[in-house]
Amino acid sequence: MNSDIKTIWWNDENNAVMLIDQTKLPVACVITEVRTVKRLVEAIRRLEIRGAPALGIAGAFGVALSALSCASDAEFAETVAMDAALLKSTRPTAVNLAWGIDRVLRSMENLPPMTARLLAVTTAKNLSAEDEKGCMLIGRNGASLLPQIGTVLTHCNAGALACSTWGTALGIIRSARKMEKKISVVSCETRPLLQGSRLTAWELHHDGIPVTSIIDAEAAWLMRQGKIDCVVVGADRITKDAVFNKIGTYMHAVCARHHNIPFYVAAPASTFDIGAAEADIVVEERSRCEVAAFWGKPTVPEGVPVINYAFDATPLDLVSAIITETGVLYPPYDFSCLGHM
Amino acid sequence: MNSDIKTIWWNDENNAVMLIDQTKLPVACVITEVRTVKRLVEAIRRLEIRGAPALGIAGAFGVALSALSCASDAEFAETVAMDAALLKSTRPTAVNLAWGIDRVLRSMENLPPMTARLLAVTTAKNLSAEDEKGCMLIGRNGASLLPQIGTVLTHCNAGALACSTWGTALGIIRSARKMEKKISVVSCETRPLLQGSRLTAWELHHDGIPVTSIIDAEAAWLMRQGKIDCVVVGADRITKDAVFNKIGTYMHAVCARHHNIPFYVAAPASTFDIGAAEADIVVEERSRCEVAAFWGKPTVPEGVPVINYAFDATPLDLVSAIITETGVLYPPYDFSCLGHM
Repeated sequence: MNSDIKTIWWNDENNAVMLIDQTKLPVACVITEVRTVKRLVEAIRRLEIRGAPALGIAGAFGVALSALSCASDAEFAETVAMDAALLKSTRPTAVNLAWGIDRVLRSMENLPPMTARLLAVTTAKNLSAEDEKGCMLIGRNGASLLPQIGTVLTHCNAGALACSTWGTALGIIRSARKMEKKISVVSCETRPLLQGSRLTAWELHHDGIPVTSIIDAEAAWLMRQGKIDCVVVGADRITKDAVFNKIGTYMHAVCARHHNIPFYVAAPASTFDIGAAEADIVVEERSRCEVAAFWGKPTVPEGVPVINYAFDATPLDLVSAIITETGVLYPPYDFSCLGHM
Repeated sequence: MNSDIKTIWWNDENNAVMLIDQTKLPVACVITEVRTVKRLVEAIRRLEIRGAPALGIAGAFGVALSALSCASDAEFAETVAMDAALLKSTRPTAVNLAWGIDRVLRSMENLPPMTARLLAVTTAKNLSAEDEKGCMLIGRNGASLLPQIGTVLTHCNAGALACSTWGTALGIIRSARKMEKKISVVSCETRPLLQGSRLTAWELHHDGIPVTSIIDAEAAWLMRQGKIDCVVVGADRITKDAVFNKIGTYMHAVCARHHNIPFYVAAPASTFDIGAAEADIVVEERSRCEVAAFWGKPTVPEGVPVINYAFDATPLDLVSAIITETGVLYPPYDFSCLGHM
């Protein structure tokens, strides 16, 4: 079991960010070259690149793009700071984005522009390599929790397409398959933007892992029929009391608990924000048109409002375990081991 | 509070069934004239007409169409029986369809064709009138359960568009508004066919009732935020142990219980099938393309299978009350009062 899916990487020849344009999937797998911060901001806003770990890498590469593109030494510090702030503002809920940006900014601190430019690129590339390594560790740590034969339900996309490669939630499934476990996947389509059916189903099918696509509202019914052995999802931010992830995650957690099905969260250390509580976090609300129209044609009558939260929060008491690159955490959760983050 | 939405009726001048083609909503409200059983079967299969009570009326009108269109007295009985069987086969889960068909068949029993034709039309029209009266009673009985000010979550469409007029679940909301209760509605879009956003949002907005449309997976998150006061849904079949309704209903029931929110089911007597148990009922599975493509464009990669149950079953222990035209039933449910059905 290997995956050749590479979601985002640095192109040394052109000093550009290369990424799979995820808005084109599952119909076509198109690689886009991004050379400016402005274009990267657009790519993040349009969800050409998305997924918490991938956003961390994108943010890091974004600071590198900014540093390289600013030819003036005099305006260097100010330009990079402004670009970093702009990049951070694109998606308020995923903590990894700001984390990736800050990692690169810190590596450049107090250095002359010439050195800072080099360091920015190196640090961002290191961060991407660490992500890949982290996903492999999360995969290995989580795979042992899965049954020898069974069906995993997942929501949204916490796969190779949400990271540099391999994935967090789907990394666990890949690692379990590598261990010869017979795991099949039920992928919830994940309205409104269908990351589950467009991305998760695409990448698992691409790698030959059995996957079935369902509407989100069918998950509980499959649980009731005994067709789901566990739920594995990713996370956009983990506070001291809750897991923020794609809207719908909380519903699956409630239903999993009702059916006594384990509910696992897979996330790298960069996802943790343990100084914060659920109540501190702004949950991104996205535009009406994502819900109210499908490919331009209205699905909701004109004049009817929509509530379109991009994420929800699942309290930790509904989470059976959190799988990180350093190990598996169980309730009652004690995040002090992650205190260095 | 009144509603002028009329979903299905008999046209005496043309001996035809008139119905709102619900596949065209919310973009356009188009009335279709149906003159043959074959065309009616197509309309039911394509969901131009849907909703358990409306299917009962459609089935009844279908037998009337069959009786009127068969000019041969010799072949009358056989033709009507074949058409009735064909109509019954279109949607296996909703019990009202077979109930409506059987009501008209029984009215024609042992009568000469000439009389039987007249009786078929009269019985079907009576059944439609009874449905309207039943919805008004369900509305009145259920409205007292709603708070003076509050937000009701509903799923799919159990409204005027699922009946002859007024509605069951939405009839309760209309009746509550008539009683000056300040009720607003959160309508779950109801994937895959979006009866919630296309139909429920349309008919409530049409009648000036405040309605917000959400994706199905957001309901639990709104419950957690205290934004939902109760859930009211319709039913396609109520057995001795479970309520069959649109896929997603069970998920809402589980989440409502988790949040201690009342979960109400509104259904006329014709929906009850208390001789049967959950395990006896075939849940209709519909085609892959309903889930795997949107307006012809794929949303699921080629080669990835889909599970597309049209309904799920909610065990009665998750149901706070069942509202019928004869009154409100509470747990522990004793359906013997409905024994005549």
